[in-house]
Amino acid sequence: MSSTIVHPAPESLWGKVSRLLLGRALRNDQLAEEKFTTFWGLPILSSDPISSVAYASEEILYVLIPVIGLLAYTQMFHIALAIVALLFILVFSYRQTIDAYPCGGGSYIVAHDNLGEIPGLTAAATLSIDYILTVAVSVAAGTAAITSAIPELLVHRVPIALFFILILTMGNLRGIKDSSRMFGLPTYAFIISMLIMIVYGIYKVHVGGFIPQTVPQMPVVAGEITFFLILRAFAAGCTALTGVEAVSNAIPNFKQPCQTKAKSVLAWLSLIVLVIFGGTSYLATLYHALPNPDSTVVAQIAGQVFGDSPMYYIVQFTTALILVMAANTAYTDFPLLMSLLAKDSYVPRQFAHRGGRLNFSNGIDFLGLAAAVLVIIFDGETHLLLPLYAVGVFASFTLSQSGMWWRWVKNKTPGWKHKAAINGFGAMVTFFTVLIIGATKFMSGAWIVCLLVPIFIYGMLKVKSHYVMVAEQLSLPLSEKAAELAGNEKQEKHIIIPLASLNRASFKALWYAKRLAGYSSIRAFHVAVDEDAAVKLRQKWADFNLEIPLIIRVSPYRDTIAPLLDYVRDEERTFGQGDLIAVVIPQFVVQKWWHNLLHNQTSYFIRSRLMKDPRIAIVTVPYPLREK
Amino acid sequence: MSSTIVHPAPESLWGKVSRLLLGRALRNDQLAEEKFTTFWGLPILSSDPISSVAYASEEILYVLIPVIGLLAYTQMFHIALAIVALLFILVFSYRQTIDAYPCGGGSYIVAHDNLGEIPGLTAAATLSIDYILTVAVSVAAGTAAITSAIPELLVHRVPIALFFILILTMGNLRGIKDSSRMFGLPTYAFIISMLIMIVYGIYKVHVGGFIPQTVPQMPVVAGEITFFLILRAFAAGCTALTGVEAVSNAIPNFKQPCQTKAKSVLAWLSLIVLVIFGGTSYLATLYHALPNPDSTVVAQIAGQVFGDSPMYYIVQFTTALILVMAANTAYTDFPLLMSLLAKDSYVPRQFAHRGGRLNFSNGIDFLGLAAAVLVIIFDGETHLLLPLYAVGVFASFTLSQSGMWWRWVKNKTPGWKHKAAINGFGAMVTFFTVLIIGATKFMSGAWIVCLLVPIFIYGMLKVKSHYVMVAEQLSLPLSEKAAELAGNEKQEKHIIIPLASLNRASFKALWYAKRLAGYSSIRAFHVAVDEDAAVKLRQKWADFNLEIPLIIRVSPYRDTIAPLLDYVRDEERTFGQGDLIAVVIPQFVVQKWWHNLLHNQTSYFIRSRLMKDPRIAIVTVPYPLREK
Repeated sequence: MSSTIVHPAPESLWGKVSRLLLGRALRNDQLAEEKFTTFWGLPILSSDPISSVAYASEEILYVLIPVIGLLAYTQMFHIALAIVALLFILVFSYRQTIDAYPCGGGSYIVAHDNLGEIPGLTAAATLSIDYILTVAVSVAAGTAAITSAIPELLVHRVPIALFFILILTMGNLRGIKDSSRMFGLPTYAFIISMLIMIVYGIYKVHVGGFIPQTVPQMPVVAGEITFFLILRAFAAGCTALTGVEAVSNAIPNFKQPCQTKAKSVLAWLSLIVLVIFGGTSYLATLYHALPNPDSTVVAQIAGQVFGDSPMYYIVQFTTALILVMAANTAYTDFPLLMSLLAKDSYVPRQFAHRGGRLNFSNGIDFLGLAAAVLVIIFDGETHLLLPLYAVGVFASFTLSQSGMWWRWVKNKTPGWKHKAAINGFGAMVTFFTVLIIGATKFMSGAWIVCLLVPIFIYGMLKVKSHYVMVAEQLSLPLSEKAAELAGNEKQEKHIIIPLASLNRASFKALWYAKRLAGYSSIRAFHVAVDEDAAVKLRQKWADFNLEIPLIIRVSPYRDTIAPLLDYVRDEERTFGQGDLIAVVIPQFVVQKWWHNLLHNQTSYFIRSRLMKDPRIAIVTVPYPLREK
Repeated sequence: MSSTIVHPAPESLWGKVSRLLLGRALRNDQLAEEKFTTFWGLPILSSDPISSVAYASEEILYVLIPVIGLLAYTQMFHIALAIVALLFILVFSYRQTIDAYPCGGGSYIVAHDNLGEIPGLTAAATLSIDYILTVAVSVAAGTAAITSAIPELLVHRVPIALFFILILTMGNLRGIKDSSRMFGLPTYAFIISMLIMIVYGIYKVHVGGFIPQTVPQMPVVAGEITFFLILRAFAAGCTALTGVEAVSNAIPNFKQPCQTKAKSVLAWLSLIVLVIFGGTSYLATLYHALPNPDSTVVAQIAGQVFGDSPMYYIVQFTTALILVMAANTAYTDFPLLMSLLAKDSYVPRQFAHRGGRLNFSNGIDFLGLAAAVLVIIFDGETHLLLPLYAVGVFASFTLSQSGMWWRWVKNKTPGWKHKAAINGFGAMVTFFTVLIIGATKFMSGAWIVCLLVPIFIYGMLKVKSHYVMVAEQLSLPLSEKAAELAGNEKQEKHIIIPLASLNRASFKALWYAKRLAGYSSIRAFHVAVDEDAAVKLRQKWADFNLEIPLIIRVSPYRDTIAPLLDYVRDEERTFGQGDLIAVVIPQFVVQKWWHNLLHNQTSYFIRSRLMKDPRIAIVTVPYPLREK
């Protein structure tokens, strides 16, 4: 009686185009094959923090140099050490999170689970905003790297940035494994070229005896080294840590054993950041790099280390590339976050559906679209986007750490004091960082984020309450079965057939309606523009001897839908309480989509208006036209 | 049994907003009240040619001065006389057209009627392009007049131009009479201020003894007065005649007797153009106005005539205003042309429907939108738009005149030789003008028009052939009645109910399907994502004891629509040749539009795919959710 058949997907023209661009659709049981190994997971999930290294030391110098001049180099080194220390705290803390949440432990889950709904949604809102900003900022920065090299392209920066977003979106739509190859290589290329630069740079001075550029005369600055200054510089350097979240969020994307693989990626990540961030900070001190708008700190170091050799251009090129690729972290993480929110009913369910290539294609599309809108609104200017950035990441860090801290304090599992101390310290440090970033950047753009977060939270709560309401109204307990199935046997059936004119399509509908056995009344209904038209139709009706009563109403306002709805409502009053009404709508169907533009979509509007009435069923009788 | 009831339109929230902005909906029998008198028809239909006067003499001088220097003033006067003569030829010719075509005789009708389909569509295509350009050019020029006065606004010229387009569109959507008041007054203000300037300007020199500015030293030019030069200047000045078409196209918009009123508007129009064009040309000679980019010829004259008095600013302001208002001619004429094309099935039928305010609202909306797109593409620059302009008008003039000429030659009605001579001469002159404008402006933009015209014609022919095809397939001759009505009595009915899950909405559909009496088979159908889900649903189905067989197919590609379509197709093969299939679709209905974003629109896609099968009727059983 019932059969279970595994069935291949059919292929339309759109299907062919999409397969060509995005790859062949994958079956559910192919899901396991698409997951990360440690080797490919590392570059995918860590391109964001690793790429931040490219500008983190520069950001610190930007804060320090104008105030304390040459003393900045000493201080920078201390601050860099502090940031690396914080990184290790975060890594230890997130190792604990990975153990506690083997199915993925992003800030949203940890905060929601331990602190409640509102902190969870706050983390979700700040994170989503930050992922969108990551894409917009990274792509804009990557574009800026290119337009600095080729200034003629400056006026085309928005189309170039949009093109990068398109490439990223399509690459990610192709699927997890393919995109890990595609996006993993540039990260490794960047790491290797940075390592070469650090090793050769140190060798060149200490062994080769190269004398770096002297520092140009510095404006006399005698600012004090205040605690606040150090904190500001520290906050500026913290951009190096923005992507740590990604790894613990993406645990389900790893091959089994996924927790072990995730932890080892985290360990490698911290090691790489330590070496590259420490190394470039040391080189900056060694080579007296000074931040300026025309040339980045990394570019100044590379220029002295490699001169005008190809290696200089390779460093520049891989830096530009990894900036764009950093956006890819968001493409891996944002759709995952959205799918979690969708499963909890906080965002539209469509975000939880896997597309033909087994990824969360709706999340990928949405991210690409939102980032493109940001790039257009902010005219592709990195400077305008940056102040909105980073507040969100550290707010979600704080929420996640607090959640873990509270978890240990509450559960008191073995060794909880030690673990709570790590998470509690992390929460405190990140919380202060949020305050500092928020305070220094509020007027220049962070207020937009502070405004958007509550709006997002409100929206997510509204969506949730809608889904709860729908589920309540649709749920069907077994106990109600008897009453529901019996129905009201005294119900009558009434049929109404609205007609625009008397043609083959409406004729078919009339004929079909008459075959719907068991009705107690049947009426055709027409809205005429004037009395003449009404008389003509009535004559034709009589000629055809149609045996169905015809009701005509004249609408002097040229509106055909409202009179029909009024007629149906009038008739309903004369029917019995539980009676059913079938509205039989004739509809001729064109073969090509653009043909629809040539016809009124009246039947569509009629249908959507009638559907609000629980007593009405709508019977659409299609009359497909042949292709010519 | 059948009743005819006049019914008031209902009012939704959107209805209230739209009434506030656009005025109350009008009844069909109010149509007569909305038509033009001569007094209000004149400014509405002639703002285009009258406003052209503001720059026609300037255009002539631009061509002549660089070649022949001071001799230009003498030649300009001759050319102005020739243009006025051409205007009189056109007026005489169009009086003949009005007599021959009392229901409106635009180029499209005249060319279509006398020369055939392709010439008619050519006229229609050139005219529609020109109407859209009229709006874009006039609005851009009007904006330029404002931004010249207030240079700070220059960067905002696109939003300002779009705002003007919005105002024009809304004003025209309000209806004919209202808009005639709103747009008629500026034309009269312009006419009056120009008359004052001409009379006082002549008085000031000849009676008051004012000595105008001397001509600054002229670069030594010794160009020859060639025939070609004169023709080019003549063509440049012909912009003064671009709007004559409007009157004969708009005959049905006049009150009865409409032909008399239209002819008298044409007579007044030619008189006003004669006086203002002749007057400003004479003043330009008298006051030695020199065309230059900073100050228009009219502005130079007004500056000398009125000094720095308020009257100077009034002339400038009314000039700016009438330039924007000139766009209004297109708003009156384009929707009419489109409605004619729609009645002949060359463009979508919707263009022939009168909106709530009795005007062709779709044509008005389309014109506004198309002009806005042009303004955005060409960045609000008049110079970039001008080369596309005027070719179209004169091409349609030529087609219309040739049509009239052929009509006289063919029909040989009394006095045909005289009439044919007038139209034939007009056709020749306008044809040469087309050649000249086309040749001089081809590279700078006229090629776009030459490319668009055949594309438009192709499109219109495709639309026509679609409507013909639909009409053929839908037409229902009385002779077929018996055969159609009988139907195939051996047909069986089969019911298929696709279900996403077992909830109240699908339960209602199942229950409804069972009440569709007389079926010979009934099946519920479900697509499961995997075997587990299939087993679960089958258990629940058994618990509810639903008495309807359940078919489950597993789709490993997460696609639910294709397996359903395949199932229906498979089943169809087992049914009899003429059997009918009712697909009963359960659909829960949300109360607010945005709730639809939260749910898959699967049933919509299922419906639109199933509708291509003539044996399937789709029964939608709505389950409206309550508002909470």
